[in-house]
Amino acid sequence: MIRHHDDGARCELTSPTALPLAGGFLWNRRMMIQVTCRGYATAQFMQPEPAKYAHAPNLEAKTFMQPEQAYYAHHPGRFVYVKDEDTGALFSAPYEPVRAPLDSFSFTAATHELAWTVEHLGLRVEMRLGLPTDDVVELWELRVTDLSGRPRRISVVPYFPIGYMSWMNQSAEWRADLGAIVASSVTPYQKVADHFKNLHLKDKTYFLCERTPDGWEASQAAFEGEGGLHDPSALQADRLAGGDARYETPAACVQYRLALAPYQSEVYRFAFGPALDDAEIAQVRSTYLSEAGFARTRAAYADYIASGSGGLRIRTPDPALDRFVNHWLPRQVFYHGDVNRLSTDPQTRNYLQDNLGMAYIAPSVTRGALLHALAQQHDNGAMPDGILLVEGAELKYINQVPHTDHCVWLPVCLQAYLDETADFALLGEVVNGQTVAQRLDAAMAWLQQDRDARGLSYIAQGDWCDPMNMVGYRGRGVSGWLTVAAAYAMSLWAGLCADAGRTEAATRWRAAAQALNDAANTHLWDGDWYARGITDDDVKFGIAADTEGRIYLNPQSWALLSGAASDTQRQRLLAAIDAQLETPHGVAMFNPPYSRMRDDVGRVTQKHPGSAENGAVYNHAAAFYVHALYAVGDADRAFHALRRMIPGPDEADLRQRGQLPVFIPNYYRGAHAQYPRTAGRSSQLFNTGTAAWAYRSLIEGLCGLRGCAEGLRVRPQLPSGWDRLDATREFRGARFELQVRRTGRACVRLDGQPLPGAVVRGIEPGRCYRLEVELA
Amino acid sequence: MIRHHDDGARCELTSPTALPLAGGFLWNRRMMIQVTCRGYATAQFMQPEPAKYAHAPNLEAKTFMQPEQAYYAHHPGRFVYVKDEDTGALFSAPYEPVRAPLDSFSFTAATHELAWTVEHLGLRVEMRLGLPTDDVVELWELRVTDLSGRPRRISVVPYFPIGYMSWMNQSAEWRADLGAIVASSVTPYQKVADHFKNLHLKDKTYFLCERTPDGWEASQAAFEGEGGLHDPSALQADRLAGGDARYETPAACVQYRLALAPYQSEVYRFAFGPALDDAEIAQVRSTYLSEAGFARTRAAYADYIASGSGGLRIRTPDPALDRFVNHWLPRQVFYHGDVNRLSTDPQTRNYLQDNLGMAYIAPSVTRGALLHALAQQHDNGAMPDGILLVEGAELKYINQVPHTDHCVWLPVCLQAYLDETADFALLGEVVNGQTVAQRLDAAMAWLQQDRDARGLSYIAQGDWCDPMNMVGYRGRGVSGWLTVAAAYAMSLWAGLCADAGRTEAATRWRAAAQALNDAANTHLWDGDWYARGITDDDVKFGIAADTEGRIYLNPQSWALLSGAASDTQRQRLLAAIDAQLETPHGVAMFNPPYSRMRDDVGRVTQKHPGSAENGAVYNHAAAFYVHALYAVGDADRAFHALRRMIPGPDEADLRQRGQLPVFIPNYYRGAHAQYPRTAGRSSQLFNTGTAAWAYRSLIEGLCGLRGCAEGLRVRPQLPSGWDRLDATREFRGARFELQVRRTGRACVRLDGQPLPGAVVRGIEPGRCYRLEVELA
Repeated sequence: MIRHHDDGARCELTSPTALPLAGGFLWNRRMMIQVTCRGYATAQFMQPEPAKYAHAPNLEAKTFMQPEQAYYAHHPGRFVYVKDEDTGALFSAPYEPVRAPLDSFSFTAATHELAWTVEHLGLRVEMRLGLPTDDVVELWELRVTDLSGRPRRISVVPYFPIGYMSWMNQSAEWRADLGAIVASSVTPYQKVADHFKNLHLKDKTYFLCERTPDGWEASQAAFEGEGGLHDPSALQADRLAGGDARYETPAACVQYRLALAPYQSEVYRFAFGPALDDAEIAQVRSTYLSEAGFARTRAAYADYIASGSGGLRIRTPDPALDRFVNHWLPRQVFYHGDVNRLSTDPQTRNYLQDNLGMAYIAPSVTRGALLHALAQQHDNGAMPDGILLVEGAELKYINQVPHTDHCVWLPVCLQAYLDETADFALLGEVVNGQTVAQRLDAAMAWLQQDRDARGLSYIAQGDWCDPMNMVGYRGRGVSGWLTVAAAYAMSLWAGLCADAGRTEAATRWRAAAQALNDAANTHLWDGDWYARGITDDDVKFGIAADTEGRIYLNPQSWALLSGAASDTQRQRLLAAIDAQLETPHGVAMFNPPYSRMRDDVGRVTQKHPGSAENGAVYNHAAAFYVHALYAVGDADRAFHALRRMIPGPDEADLRQRGQLPVFIPNYYRGAHAQYPRTAGRSSQLFNTGTAAWAYRSLIEGLCGLRGCAEGLRVRPQLPSGWDRLDATREFRGARFELQVRRTGRACVRLDGQPLPGAVVRGIEPGRCYRLEVELA
Repeated sequence: MIRHHDDGARCELTSPTALPLAGGFLWNRRMMIQVTCRGYATAQFMQPEPAKYAHAPNLEAKTFMQPEQAYYAHHPGRFVYVKDEDTGALFSAPYEPVRAPLDSFSFTAATHELAWTVEHLGLRVEMRLGLPTDDVVELWELRVTDLSGRPRRISVVPYFPIGYMSWMNQSAEWRADLGAIVASSVTPYQKVADHFKNLHLKDKTYFLCERTPDGWEASQAAFEGEGGLHDPSALQADRLAGGDARYETPAACVQYRLALAPYQSEVYRFAFGPALDDAEIAQVRSTYLSEAGFARTRAAYADYIASGSGGLRIRTPDPALDRFVNHWLPRQVFYHGDVNRLSTDPQTRNYLQDNLGMAYIAPSVTRGALLHALAQQHDNGAMPDGILLVEGAELKYINQVPHTDHCVWLPVCLQAYLDETADFALLGEVVNGQTVAQRLDAAMAWLQQDRDARGLSYIAQGDWCDPMNMVGYRGRGVSGWLTVAAAYAMSLWAGLCADAGRTEAATRWRAAAQALNDAANTHLWDGDWYARGITDDDVKFGIAADTEGRIYLNPQSWALLSGAASDTQRQRLLAAIDAQLETPHGVAMFNPPYSRMRDDVGRVTQKHPGSAENGAVYNHAAAFYVHALYAVGDADRAFHALRRMIPGPDEADLRQRGQLPVFIPNYYRGAHAQYPRTAGRSSQLFNTGTAAWAYRSLIEGLCGLRGCAEGLRVRPQLPSGWDRLDATREFRGARFELQVRRTGRACVRLDGQPLPGAVVRGIEPGRCYRLEVELA
């Protein structure tokens, strides 16, 4: 069902029905597209807010993507019908909309392209999608080959639905001058001010054809007719009618009638995307729509992806893990860090963590992001709910809800950056009149003061958990997680201050962290784990007395990180997690899920039980847990939790999750006890803070190659079942080749010599270091 | 293709493919549903803002309905699959989603129900939809009959898709305790304040079954499987699997396996709608879900519709017109007036005109509406852009754009009300400290002062034409239409003042009207017609020099009404309309349509050419024209324009319009020269100010039975091709039986006696009057 190629850089799925929602995604700095193995597509581009050029068949709400995205017959997609003109037999590639039983099917997610090969009726259809690095355009190559050994007369009919563009104005027609079907629309609006805002919008969608087709149809309804999308009426004629769409739902459909000699192939290229005007469309044609243009663009895009491939390569007893870590995980980290989830106002928390991930890929990006974020710090030290990235951007949606955790992520991100770079000069950089160090002090001071009389951190309308919005909306409720998270943030900052020679500050923040830890232990320890918080009405929750939401993962993970948990507490809370949160698909964020609204906790309790924040295996939380486990040296639990973020490798697991192992989704369904049928199902959403943390844990935890002020600390933490690990890591311009063997005796050697303190010091850029680690 | 029954109260369509978008609509005070002949449905209910209980398959934008609504495979609908269990053959009623070629098909729009009868495979399936008068619930009766003369084993499978309810929470399951599939959801929100607003929302959708089914499926995807909606995989098994939907797209699907003896029938009843909780669902079952409950409800609903059937019945040489006027047009007027288009903030203009229509159906409603609207008048005499109908309602969408015409509709509506009732006491009613007469004075004074130095009326960001938003958004542009409309409004008000003995006011407003007419003639007469306006930059438009938007209908119609146009001007402008705006489908609102943005006119020019306000046969404007033509005695032009508002009767016309003659749509496509393929196509939207005016023109113009202060003025205006008309009219509690004959000599007789001045005076409620009119 799944095969791997190119050392894992290509993941192939050989069934269109086994994982029907599985797909892959491509992006560049102005767009992203996710395509399922069956041909449905969700694409967005930035102008600068996210917009679409292929739409649903109705008036859609504005949304990026939904978890477990629902597909349906007229969902946007990219399809090619193939008709045998002698027999009338019909199928479509990749699989939708005809859903004909194919002789063979292959979908391949490669790091730099998506590709399909299907065979049916003695014909092979190959489709390949690539993107350029900057422009918003899909580049499609289509190859049709006669495998039958006899001459064939066939029609090849690409069908790219464009959907309902606008109630104000939508039309489409074949434009011989451009060699394209061009659909035109006016983005709907009613207020005159919006007209001026909309002037720059790319309201045209084009489907450019390198070769002039023999027929075309620009009206969805005319193409479909009474036959339905699975058997369109228009394909019963010899030739498409050449129709247009006039305030009708547009589609891009073109027909090539061809006679193939035995084993002959024909190749077609198309470009699909949005444009402001005809000139832009003509420009896309001249830039891209040729064999040379495709080849050049493909190479450039592969280079772009390679630029984000990270500095880690591993070889372990788990080849599926190796494939994921060497090719896919850094790609996902790079996506987040390079394009900030294609948002103009990323949540501050996401922005800082996504850039934490970039510390392992392109640390200068992290540096810039920290400065950019700090420039938007409020005068009182608090961080805003979102970071505005472009002129004119504004805080939208969830960023209009006040959260109290954003300051936490500053030292967390900074620590990773400084671990990677030792660039302590950053602390002295001046941002809007204050140094970075002063701004970090102010952020920590804000966290320190935003607490109640017990010393616990207020939650307002949310912390890391966005929908936990009613614990403290009346101004009194506190967050157990944020209390220990603030302690951890302050202790990190204290450590960095110490490294930077700011001794007084270090002492102060260490004490402040201790005060928070003490408060947590006094008020939140519930006997076997930490409570999640205390509501406006002084009701503790996330405790043994609760029948739903009894134990939350985050307070435990961060109490391990902050040092709040004593050894005894650690043993008890780990045992509780093992007993109550472990699932076959990872560690649940809490359990049991809420089955009904709890209005002193909030919106999280209204989400479907087991989905998203309501008790799913929410990988971001699981990633914190992994990080904490490596921090306390619990290598087995850490690896076990980490490994289950990746679908497979066994087939039953892949089928249950329904996803290819090419990214970590934001969640797998939880509620294993309540809803076993759906438990483990992937959200298919690749936007998640998980990626950065998972990558960090692999580098710093599993491989144990963590930067520090002095250099590189070496402390691999292999799961007990492993006897070896080989890795290479790029770090501060040098290359480290790590060989770990479980020999029964512990030692670390650098270039054959014992390494005192297991820290490589005085790293010279350009050098290659050989590290040998033996484990007891 | 179309047949009529019950004197026209039932309109039957016998093809599912001839008019694929055609359908009918039902409503009550809390909901409406429009269903196409093929089974797609669009339903809304008020809570109090419009909401849905059956959704699209994706995250929809909030919208009432769109013109020329796009349907697609997974669009909400109401379907019944029927499977022959011996042969496996499958079809669906009414037609979607299987689209099997049926032996016979019948869709009937009746005034009080929608019904289908289809025959295939020797089986007859009858579906019937009714509504109660108050509750939000669809009542479906399904009858299956074996016509084959041999015993049959079949499955009958109602399939009511529920669609994508919410990204927060959606699920569905069979509830044996309720005898229903119940889908539950949480309306998505992010801000805590919205939680409290949402507490009363009916987030459940139920499908109640009178008879317990043999199987069911609550997951859309599980039902459809790989087979597709046209051949669902779940129907290949003997029995539906009994599945649920857990954060999956819900559907209501139940299966009855039955053995039918030859010619045996089975009847099933279902109730489909939204609910707050289980108790509401149980209540719907006990109230409605029985043979008796359906019968009682059906009778009550028929009574409700009959209560709005208006006071006019006609018999003319045009039976299709008779059917429409006697059954369908008053129904459409009643819909508008009784439920105000299911909006909580109808546009002031719509609200007043819809209630103008109610003057002919239930005048006390008009009275209440006038008082309700005047209570929201601003202190400066201006009317707000919308009228708030319920506590907590707010001005939304287009009502946030400032328009300058709303005061015009006060005397227009008042005139119709007083013509019907002579209830001049209304003028003395006190509303917020001022009498109605004082408020009308203030409204007229506002119109009088809101003019430029030339005496022309400012347009701000729109007048009657909402999207004409950039003529005057910079504060200087004026509306030619509004100038003469204000003149007409003032002259109407002057007349009413005179009738009410307010002589000084009458004189004053007559002079004010004259000043407006003079200004129009001075600045707007373009030689053959009146200009539409003058822009902020002092550019006159809607004039002969324009290549697009050259001549607009409204300024001409209202110049006839206001008296601005002299006889010569009238002849010239009518000739220009004949030459430039007449189409086979009615009179266009202007011509030629704009093909590109004209940014000194505005959004109207961005709509698709020939659609909606951009040069369609926009029936509301055509209705003003008809009213004006009757006002100036141009009976032939008036009738010709009026008649073309109704689809048919000939088949070619019906096919081109694509609509049944059961309502007047807001537009038929224009742009006949540019886009003949789509010209004449109905918008299928039944919300339109047209209905009230068309009804008024039929009563007061064609039949010539217009109320006045003294009684009833009798002046029928038959088109020249007619030699007769018979009508009955209810008026001020009396009944008038009118017989018009073209005899060559003109006279009017009341109960056999010549009627001086053709005015019936001293009308006695309860009496029946016989009017005989002879025409020259």
